[in-house]
Amino acid sequence: MDVTTSKIGVVGSGSWATAIAKMVLINSDSINWLFRKQDYIDAFRKIKHNPNYLTSVSFDTDRIHFTNDINEIVEKSDILIFANPSAFLKETLQDLKVPLKDKFIVSAIKGLVTDENMVIGSYFHTYYDVPLDQILVISGPCHAEEVALERLSYLTIACQNIKTGREFANRLQCNFINTVVTDDIYGTEYAAVLKNIMAIASGICHGLGYGDNFQAVLISNAIQEMKRFVDTVHPIPRDIKSSAYLGDLLVTCYSQFSRNRTFGTMIGKGYSVKSAQLEMLMIAEGYYAAKSIKEINDKYSVFMPITSAVYNIIYEKISPAIEIRLLTELLR
Amino acid sequence: MDVTTSKIGVVGSGSWATAIAKMVLINSDSINWLFRKQDYIDAFRKIKHNPNYLTSVSFDTDRIHFTNDINEIVEKSDILIFANPSAFLKETLQDLKVPLKDKFIVSAIKGLVTDENMVIGSYFHTYYDVPLDQILVISGPCHAEEVALERLSYLTIACQNIKTGREFANRLQCNFINTVVTDDIYGTEYAAVLKNIMAIASGICHGLGYGDNFQAVLISNAIQEMKRFVDTVHPIPRDIKSSAYLGDLLVTCYSQFSRNRTFGTMIGKGYSVKSAQLEMLMIAEGYYAAKSIKEINDKYSVFMPITSAVYNIIYEKISPAIEIRLLTELLR
Repeated sequence: MDVTTSKIGVVGSGSWATAIAKMVLINSDSINWLFRKQDYIDAFRKIKHNPNYLTSVSFDTDRIHFTNDINEIVEKSDILIFANPSAFLKETLQDLKVPLKDKFIVSAIKGLVTDENMVIGSYFHTYYDVPLDQILVISGPCHAEEVALERLSYLTIACQNIKTGREFANRLQCNFINTVVTDDIYGTEYAAVLKNIMAIASGICHGLGYGDNFQAVLISNAIQEMKRFVDTVHPIPRDIKSSAYLGDLLVTCYSQFSRNRTFGTMIGKGYSVKSAQLEMLMIAEGYYAAKSIKEINDKYSVFMPITSAVYNIIYEKISPAIEIRLLTELLR
Repeated sequence: MDVTTSKIGVVGSGSWATAIAKMVLINSDSINWLFRKQDYIDAFRKIKHNPNYLTSVSFDTDRIHFTNDINEIVEKSDILIFANPSAFLKETLQDLKVPLKDKFIVSAIKGLVTDENMVIGSYFHTYYDVPLDQILVISGPCHAEEVALERLSYLTIACQNIKTGREFANRLQCNFINTVVTDDIYGTEYAAVLKNIMAIASGICHGLGYGDNFQAVLISNAIQEMKRFVDTVHPIPRDIKSSAYLGDLLVTCYSQFSRNRTFGTMIGKGYSVKSAQLEMLMIAEGYYAAKSIKEINDKYSVFMPITSAVYNIIYEKISPAIEIRLLTELLR
């Protein structure tokens, strides 16, 4: 199978899935696209855009083969890009009968598999026998909203086979997308997960009234915490200051488009977790990530004061003001 | 002389000097303070705040000994904090007759000495015989405006004698100021200079319409460029992800309070350098720094694509749109 020409299927109907579909369709004649709900497919066909997300992006629907059948999309695609929320991944896969071991699996999820505490790539490798060199990761720094606006963005593509990574990257590269290729599939996924926790912390502090000076200290400490964790869990040489790690952290912590930061801001301002989630109508991946990373770290005992603070606030119901006050004593 | 109790003099009348005076007066009975203009001193005494900067901060003027005489302030102070713009340093010192060699000199300037291409500490060491262990640096991440608001901020104090650094830091520490001490006097000063160039770049890109995704890539590359330069010019072990380096870069590139970013934004939007400077009425240190760092780097030849781009735009009058387009090809 040839990555440069083979058929791409996109799984997911949110803003990131929509941004990825837009990018793929620039260099590909057509794509397969899985939506969970037939209603949304019907609406999409009629109005020529995703009815719920990135509604400003028009699509030529003749070039999209929509389906709500996981078996059909897997059968008809050689490369499957998973871009749905991590909380729905298992549900999406539960009826799958078609084997995945000959497919390329691309994780664009930025979360861990619920209850398994595994990065997406490991999960497909372990439970679906996908060879490691057929696992790819799409990472940022990249908010879907700016892809919609065609503002220059850089994607990081991770694959242990650099040639495969480069070939797949070329299918996304266009006048507003630059790509960087790395072999660090685990580190890239973990960084994408951790940055959402850090963005919640950033939002909480903002909500509590901490200013720009403190945010700079928080995020400097956040990248150090990320490095400690990733280098411990998957120790290979990597420069944590690269776009895929630091850049992705920055865009998530500083951008107005970040839902994790928004979620944190609401918590900092005094909303309960439940009411913040209801208000947002979107899933803040960092909510699940804080629990998973804490559980994974029970084994490694990496010093993670920011992750612990977020966990204590959203799961242990410790007052944000008190917890962040304690955190300030641990930062430097 | 004892750093913990000795008399502090502040040189400079801008917002950063005013923020420093506010901090020092929390733990000290009184300070000496040099203003260039007697008019401003008279106004300050009358209205009980700096007439031009951080006007919301009230001072007990009975605890301030104002002067416009550099010899008087040096004579009456044991520790001199220089917080004036780098462009005025030589002028401020031109009438100095009193020796400095027994004083502690604290650089809070965040610029290089004009025409000399030297960090402030080196200049006082070389031309005023101040021993290296009497040179200190105050660095951020810290915008003066948030000190005025008493928002929690972290200062980095650099001194080759860590004990002296710690003692001086204690004089600034209070309920809204945390301090971190390091021995890296050169790296801290260079980082404070470089971050202003990076903030101009950040502003230019913002002014040209580049979005958050690209800013994250730019700043990830900026910290790598800073590390390459500082590690080459002064190779000692340092973690560039610390608050004094990365944090200071972040607050300057992302904050609404950053004058260097504002200057860059105006350039990106099409203002000439001259009209941007007139409009702002404040000196963007990065303007001078871009030229000095470029000249220093002629000797070292560190790969500095962002600094070069800023230099080309503001000194060589290359179109910002073209120069930044070329820069995007060099980032990753």
